Amino acid sequence: MKTALFIGRFQPFHKGHLYAITEILEEVDEIIIGIGSAQHSHTLNNPFNAGERIRMIRESLKEHGIDPSRYFLIPINDINDNRLWVSHVITLSPPFQLVYTNDPLTTQLFNEAQFKVVSLKMHQRELYCATEIRTRMLEGESWEDLVPKKVIEIVREIGGLKRIRNIGTTKLKI
Amino acid sequence: MKTALFIGRFQPFHKGHLYAITEILEEVDEIIIGIGSAQHSHTLNNPFNAGERIRMIRESLKEHGIDPSRYFLIPINDINDNRLWVSHVITLSPPFQLVYTNDPLTTQLFNEAQFKVVSLKMHQRELYCATEIRTRMLEGESWEDLVPKKVIEIVREIGGLKRIRNIGTTKLKI
Amino acid sequence: MKTALFIGRFQPFHKGHLYAITEILEEVDEIIIGIGSAQHSHTLNNPFNAGERIRMIRESLKEHGIDPSRYFLIPINDINDNRLWVSHVITLSPPFQLVYTNDPLTTQLFNEAQFKVVSLKMHQRELYCATEIRTRMLEGESWEDLVPKKVIEIVREIGGLKRIRNIGTTKLKI
Amino acid sequence: MKTALFIGRFQPFHKGHLYAITEILEEVDEIIIGIGSAQHSHTLNNPFNAGERIRMIRESLKEHGIDPSRYFLIPINDINDNRLWVSHVITLSPPFQLVYTNDPLTTQLFNEAQFKVVSLKMHQRELYCATEIRTRMLEGESWEDLVPKKVIEIVREIGGLKRIRNIGTTKLKI
Amino acid sequence: MKTALFIGRFQPFHKGHLYAITEILEEVDEIIIGIGSAQHSHTLNNPFNAGERIRMIRESLKEHGIDPSRYFLIPINDINDNRLWVSHVITLSPPFQLVYTNDPLTTQLFNEAQFKVVSLKMHQRELYCATEIRTRMLEGESWEDLVPKKVIEIVREIGGLKRIRNIGTTKLKI
Amino acid sequence: MKTALFIGRFQPFHKGHLYAITEILEEVDEIIIGIGSAQHSHTLNNPFNAGERIRMIRESLKEHGIDPSRYFLIPINDINDNRLWVSHVITLSPPFQLVYTNDPLTTQLFNEAQFKVVSLKMHQRELYCATEIRTRMLEGESWEDLVPKKVIEIVREIGGLKRIRNIGTTKLKI
Repeated sequence: MKTALFIGRFQPFHKGHLYAITEILEEVDEIIIGIGSAQHSHTLNNPFNAGERIRMIRESLKEHGIDPSRYFLIPINDINDNRLWVSHVITLSPPFQLVYTNDPLTTQLFNEAQFKVVSLKMHQRELYCATEIRTRMLEGESWEDLVPKKVIEIVREIGGLKRIRNIGTTKLKI
Repeated sequence: MKTALFIGRFQPFHKGHLYAITEILEEVDEIIIGIGSAQHSHTLNNPFNAGERIRMIRESLKEHGIDPSRYFLIPINDINDNRLWVSHVITLSPPFQLVYTNDPLTTQLFNEAQFKVVSLKMHQRELYCATEIRTRMLEGESWEDLVPKKVIEIVREIGGLKRIRNIGTTKLKI
Repeated sequence: MKTALFIGRFQPFHKGHLYAITEILEEVDEIIIGIGSAQHSHTLNNPFNAGERIRMIRESLKEHGIDPSRYFLIPINDINDNRLWVSHVITLSPPFQLVYTNDPLTTQLFNEAQFKVVSLKMHQRELYCATEIRTRMLEGESWEDLVPKKVIEIVREIGGLKRIRNIGTTKLKI
Repeated sequence: MKTALFIGRFQPFHKGHLYAITEILEEVDEIIIGIGSAQHSHTLNNPFNAGERIRMIRESLKEHGIDPSRYFLIPINDINDNRLWVSHVITLSPPFQLVYTNDPLTTQLFNEAQFKVVSLKMHQRELYCATEIRTRMLEGESWEDLVPKKVIEIVREIGGLKRIRNIGTTKLKI
Repeated sequence: MKTALFIGRFQPFHKGHLYAITEILEEVDEIIIGIGSAQHSHTLNNPFNAGERIRMIRESLKEHGIDPSRYFLIPINDINDNRLWVSHVITLSPPFQLVYTNDPLTTQLFNEAQFKVVSLKMHQRELYCATEIRTRMLEGESWEDLVPKKVIEIVREIGGLKRIRNIGTTKLKI
Repeated sequence: MKTALFIGRFQPFHKGHLYAITEILEEVDEIIIGIGSAQHSHTLNNPFNAGERIRMIRESLKEHGIDPSRYFLIPINDINDNRLWVSHVITLSPPFQLVYTNDPLTTQLFNEAQFKVVSLKMHQRELYCATEIRTRMLEGESWEDLVPKKVIEIVREIGGLKRIRNIGTTKLKI
């Protein structure tokens, strides 16, 4: 059985992520979806907590008919120590043989640990980009087309837009 | 939709856990299975790492025909700060309304946070007990009847018995 | 009895803080003054350690005749985890019903935890601003008018200006 | 001005602590009351959180007419690193010249840092002992005579006895 | 070039350690001496800080004519996470091919990481044992024969016996 | 005996460091070389792990004929708490009387702790500068003249240039 690791922060989960997962599942039997920076929330780069991101991914994959027996969702805390990060991921996760990523540091670290790293074809990369989506949320522009429907629902339900704007206007003031 | 939280360390996952999950799923729509002390492994109380425990649970539930869309598996790091533990669990997890546990401290902490806590009927509690199973593994007694088949396979595959015995004879010596 | 929380980093304690405390004490019986980022010192944003800030606040309030039985001073460590911050503050502090703040993130976090948050009228906000005061200290401009007299004395006693300038010229060089 | 440090965990604050504080205030101008293990709560050794302990101390001292301008209450987190503990305490606290303690490790650490350490006369040491009080709370025996009245009130208000008993029956079971 | 790792806590460095190092240097070109639990001191199991232990080892090896170009001394912090410990050691240290140890957990962890682990012949194991030496120090018995001369000198210079006895009589009392 | 402390991050070890060590050894008997930010690696500011830096320093000093009995190499973890940093360094290290540094914050912190701090004469400071060297490595310019020969060899052996470039093109993208 072939298992692949796919790591992201999913802030938020968007259509680019969804396409990547679909693509990877054509190549392997199972995919481990690692949710990075799991302990962070309520910052501009990480507005959503791990539980909210788990829901976004799980409900979107369900809506798109992806068989839940083919993926694992694993929240992965940052440990702020690149020396130990690959071991940290390996021991939090069922065994995998491949790593799908376009991130050069992730590539470097898994390569040094002797893993095979595969590049992702990215669909409309500039568009399906979480940084772009968070910026649009912050500035009141349209972002809904870039994410699965379920993500729109969850962001609404938790008051996500208001949260991002409150975070966005916070600076160290007092 | 009714969602319940069920937290354990699953060192290892045993038939008592399996019965509890089956029982809970008769009462609720979805169950969140929280894997506590996720960062620990290779100690007498926590011999298996989180990835190994995820496999034990997932493969056992699959073997017993439990629908993967009805449960979430969430590794939960210890934070060694009871003051913050409930908040830690809540934000790592999709929303839940009920907590199933027989542990008095877990009961106390979730009660103080205004959650409804439900006791588990335990099946042959003395027998289906992870401490008992680890002791048997350490002392070379029979433990296989107490866990699902898939757990036996995984313990073999990872050399779990040898690991436990090596840990068991370790003391601070030098 | 009505108790309010007022959180700041107090780097240093200035007249804006003093006015805010006076103002809040007109509305409530007791005020809990939370000293944020308590573990930090000797950085440009946090030049003073918690003990020094406690002295600044306590001696200034004494000088201005504020009854010590009406306030609590509570140092609050950063935990770098917004998910847990409100629980962290609550358990370090006697109970409170109101939070006074103008900071949008603090507002957001306490609102999500169902607390009532009240805005502060700020007196000459641009002037009574700790960032402005630290900049003046660093650049050798006049800052003494912006803080209570006792703060001037303490900054002198601990060699605070020299400290800030040494920190200010430090970069990662070697 | 002479300032003394007095450190305890105050689990709970009892009459022995109260007598010690009274005694110390006869010798010095101000006392810094350090509340150790501040981040702990809901364990058998540390059942009460820092906020609850602050209330116990503050309200008891008020009831006994101790002038609030003569003491500081400083919560002190454990850092689990004896090498750094004295520096940690010093920087969280206004300056002090004396340390009152009967604890040999505290004595050793402050002596190595060149502080003068003074022994406390303990009043009925076996009786006014937090371990004894927690044991009585756990086992349903009478403990109320050993603590100031305000502590009895607070323990009742927060459901402290039930909490301790729930913690007391918790073991690692599942 | 053949390099070996030898890890201990060296609380204190004793003749058994010295013999082991001599023995290992007959087999390999260089030895990396890892000083475990480096951040601990002033506890019964870890009375000496890392700097004191470095001195004990270095001055003893010098006295016994061991060439300083043939060994490395590396303090190694505990990380309390067995999953990551081998990676932690590897990245703090120059490369090594062999691990000398009699500790079953160390053996297990390095075996799982594909290192060759070699057992040490221990010289009078019951005698040359740090636990035994610390017990003798605590109880005022003779311990000096069990350690190199330089260790006796350093323990005296830092007041080590008084320190151990003060730690030994400390319990959580107040 | 006169012992000096010299702290750097040595990312990488360069000729300026080598000259400084030679210079200091003309004034003192022994030098303690503290390797700061020891737990970091694989970042733009800290590309090399502690083990790699230990090798760079040790092999370069050997090549330049510096007697290994005259220096100590001590990896020093960041603790992100300036309040405690001097105590942290002191207890990880054999005793020293002097600190050689040009860094104003290090100067400030050791001065507050009553140490004598000495400035370094820097040789061609703009050139022998680790930031400059890392920039050249990243941008493919010539850097080899600025470091000892052994450092060139080690950087090659570990694939250091490729590592830095991979880190350099990493941004938070997904």
